Amino acid sequence: MFSLLGGTPLWANRKGLRMCTDELLKKVLKANLELVEHRLVVFTWGNASQIDRVRGIVAIKPSGVPYQGMRASDMTVVDLDGNVLEGKFKPSSDTPTHLELYKRFPSIGGIVHTHARWSTIWAQACRDIPPYGTTHADYFHGPIPCMRKLSPVEIRNDYELNTGKVIVEGFTQRNIDPVAIPGTLVAGHGPFAWGRDAMDAVHNAVVMEECAMMAAHSEVVNPAIIEIEQPLLDKHYLRKHGKEAYYGQQSG
Amino acid sequence: MFSLLGGTPLWANRKGLRMCTDELLKKVLKANLELVEHRLVVFTWGNASQIDRVRGIVAIKPSGVPYQGMRASDMTVVDLDGNVLEGKFKPSSDTPTHLELYKRFPSIGGIVHTHARWSTIWAQACRDIPPYGTTHADYFHGPIPCMRKLSPVEIRNDYELNTGKVIVEGFTQRNIDPVAIPGTLVAGHGPFAWGRDAMDAVHNAVVMEECAMMAAHSEVVNPAIIEIEQPLLDKHYLRKHGKEAYYGQQSG
Amino acid sequence: MFSLLGGTPLWANRKGLRMCTDELLKKVLKANLELVEHRLVVFTWGNASQIDRVRGIVAIKPSGVPYQGMRASDMTVVDLDGNVLEGKFKPSSDTPTHLELYKRFPSIGGIVHTHARWSTIWAQACRDIPPYGTTHADYFHGPIPCMRKLSPVEIRNDYELNTGKVIVEGFTQRNIDPVAIPGTLVAGHGPFAWGRDAMDAVHNAVVMEECAMMAAHSEVVNPAIIEIEQPLLDKHYLRKHGKEAYYGQQSG
Amino acid sequence: MFSLLGGTPLWANRKGLRMCTDELLKKVLKANLELVEHRLVVFTWGNASQIDRVRGIVAIKPSGVPYQGMRASDMTVVDLDGNVLEGKFKPSSDTPTHLELYKRFPSIGGIVHTHARWSTIWAQACRDIPPYGTTHADYFHGPIPCMRKLSPVEIRNDYELNTGKVIVEGFTQRNIDPVAIPGTLVAGHGPFAWGRDAMDAVHNAVVMEECAMMAAHSEVVNPAIIEIEQPLLDKHYLRKHGKEAYYGQQSG
Repeated sequence: MFSLLGGTPLWANRKGLRMCTDELLKKVLKANLELVEHRLVVFTWGNASQIDRVRGIVAIKPSGVPYQGMRASDMTVVDLDGNVLEGKFKPSSDTPTHLELYKRFPSIGGIVHTHARWSTIWAQACRDIPPYGTTHADYFHGPIPCMRKLSPVEIRNDYELNTGKVIVEGFTQRNIDPVAIPGTLVAGHGPFAWGRDAMDAVHNAVVMEECAMMAAHSEVVNPAIIEIEQPLLDKHYLRKHGKEAYYGQQSG
Repeated sequence: MFSLLGGTPLWANRKGLRMCTDELLKKVLKANLELVEHRLVVFTWGNASQIDRVRGIVAIKPSGVPYQGMRASDMTVVDLDGNVLEGKFKPSSDTPTHLELYKRFPSIGGIVHTHARWSTIWAQACRDIPPYGTTHADYFHGPIPCMRKLSPVEIRNDYELNTGKVIVEGFTQRNIDPVAIPGTLVAGHGPFAWGRDAMDAVHNAVVMEECAMMAAHSEVVNPAIIEIEQPLLDKHYLRKHGKEAYYGQQSG
Repeated sequence: MFSLLGGTPLWANRKGLRMCTDELLKKVLKANLELVEHRLVVFTWGNASQIDRVRGIVAIKPSGVPYQGMRASDMTVVDLDGNVLEGKFKPSSDTPTHLELYKRFPSIGGIVHTHARWSTIWAQACRDIPPYGTTHADYFHGPIPCMRKLSPVEIRNDYELNTGKVIVEGFTQRNIDPVAIPGTLVAGHGPFAWGRDAMDAVHNAVVMEECAMMAAHSEVVNPAIIEIEQPLLDKHYLRKHGKEAYYGQQSG
Repeated sequence: MFSLLGGTPLWANRKGLRMCTDELLKKVLKANLELVEHRLVVFTWGNASQIDRVRGIVAIKPSGVPYQGMRASDMTVVDLDGNVLEGKFKPSSDTPTHLELYKRFPSIGGIVHTHARWSTIWAQACRDIPPYGTTHADYFHGPIPCMRKLSPVEIRNDYELNTGKVIVEGFTQRNIDPVAIPGTLVAGHGPFAWGRDAMDAVHNAVVMEECAMMAAHSEVVNPAIIEIEQPLLDKHYLRKHGKEAYYGQQSG
């Protein structure tokens, strides 16, 4: 798995982030507010979280609390078993999904879930978002996969945990690297995106939304459209990621 | 009817709201302004109302008055027969529709009518909005039904009253619980949404608009799309509503 | 012609508006700025004008001047032959179209031209906008007609004048009352809307844009869609217009 | 080539712009910020540049630097071989494309690249944007051409330079005047637009976005749509450009 990247996940060479809880809460608050800023959420339909892998704790948005006036101290801190360690509110009802992804995708540091319109449209259509252009390739090194539907049993009990399990199952079975494809669609539900931290996950959620919108309309403009070629997909992804990256100011 | 919820409408266990008229007017004003905030209305194309069931009075937006600069004292108070009790303006021309719904749907406390784009698109298309995802299921426990067209006779006389009657007829004939499906489409016209009070009705109108937009495009992205399965529909609806609700901070 | 309304155009019983030039300029400025407010124009792609029928003068936006920072004194005043009477700028290049409409449609008092997205989409598609709902019927008492294309000769010389002539020809040949249908599409170009004054023309331009957007999508949601029935079309139009109007606060 | 315009490119009779570096940087900054203002860019997905042809220098946005808080002194100045002359940041990774266009299209003075939604949708669909209306004709005197895909070899080495070469090749082979058609689509990637300076390039990028959006939907509203006729295309283009222009205040 992850062979393209030489077996070394891009974020794996970073030490687990060590930060005080206050800093973690501030970062998670900021990421949640960015979701509103980028118009990815309506009402309370979204949540962002970030993990401190050294301490094994996750800060996440509380359940059903409005974004307006939200403060860092309103975030909830849980351990990887879902026990609330800090915070006056219940954590997001999607917390078990987040925790399952943190456990099984060790190289991710932040997760975002929304019901953003265009990503959700593809999730409802139960289709992968095909890579039709370089905007997609700049961040997702292949189709953004749509997971299988949950079974009635999986829905009835431990629904949110099973949502996470279905995502992990899908990535494993299709041999998809969650670093190279930092997001997914849950069939009939909506998108999850992740990244090296909560803000990076927000960033990838915004990209997914742009790609979802453009892919839908590109198919209307040209029903015979095909995915971009592998060399272009590789070029753009690797222009921004990995050792050969030369986009931005930090490449070396 | 309403069997899924065990015969107990969700809002029925609340006492009719008792509040002074000033408070009622303020709430109705706020709900009307929220319609603008959520971009559901253009010009004066929308109205929100709320009922005080103890006193049997309804406060509603005046007819054709601009939202900008609107004050609580501009709202009109009517009784259930449509007699104006307070206010310097004529009530919304849609008042007879509101009153019919309040009379026949005893568990609702607020109503909203708009010509919001996506909901109206489905109303003009004379189609139910199918539940294609959990965003829909979180608030509407099944398709958002489109009512039949009014007959020429129903249009010519008591048009607005007949609009209300056609809604009640549609919900009755199709055995739809107005608490579980807090909104509808009037064919060739537009959406009505309701809730436990005016603000909740606004909330449901916003949700309907999101679902309408996403459903239309999901069908384009996947013309073979099918509705989400009953277990997922139940799960999401009951996650937010009823005794077993666990979303948000108020569940038990 | 105009038989439905009993031969009495709705605005014809008003005396031609008598106002000082300053007031006229202010009203035309305000209408032009409203076009921006309602997001109907990009850059300088739009213009609004108003006529003082007593004095036989028309105030119109200058050609190609940006909206930002525009003042009433930047408007240009012309007579019905297009002679500039006041103003430091050349009038809009579309002035001959406006003047032709004012001459031939004596009951209109204001005109707006834009390249607003959805109205222009229908103009480019060379199709009438069908009345699919009451939003349309509230303001346009039938389809919003798309005019025929101009011939090469009509394009080459006096293009803008011929644009006006083609509109008048279309309304005459199809026996359409410009009061009952206060707007049109010029094929391959864009919309013109009018009304009793410049602000009313802006209002109708906004309505046309809403109807154009919703009609396009209603056809996608239901390809077998049909126009609303005549009784509903009549009901909604006459609810807001004519002697029997009961919408708003001014009905009698 | 360029026969319609009589062999005299519209901007060619201007002397190369002579300005101090500070002024050039300010203009390039302003153009980049206008991209954000017109909502053509998300994150850092866009860049604008301007050339001083007398001095042979180009100012361009730095690579991957956020727009918020950007200052004129953050721009990078390069010569036509891509050597950095001034600036603390690496220039945009698309700089080689810009330079190739400046070298081969001597009459252009500014270039913009974005991933704007509607233009990118057509680029992903690998289709020219047909001229369906006068909005298009006002600025683009024919279809906005979509270039061929790059070969794997062209992608692998000197990708950005080759992107520029493919654009020049496309315009040359199709005998398209880059002054009459001030923009293009790179297949599977996105739009480039240009103009007499950076701000004019932004202007043309905005126009392309409007035309792309409207063309896509005009085809849905009328699948049998055809391009506007040559006389109308000529009329509108020449109304705003060339010796006979009469739109705006500067025509002679």
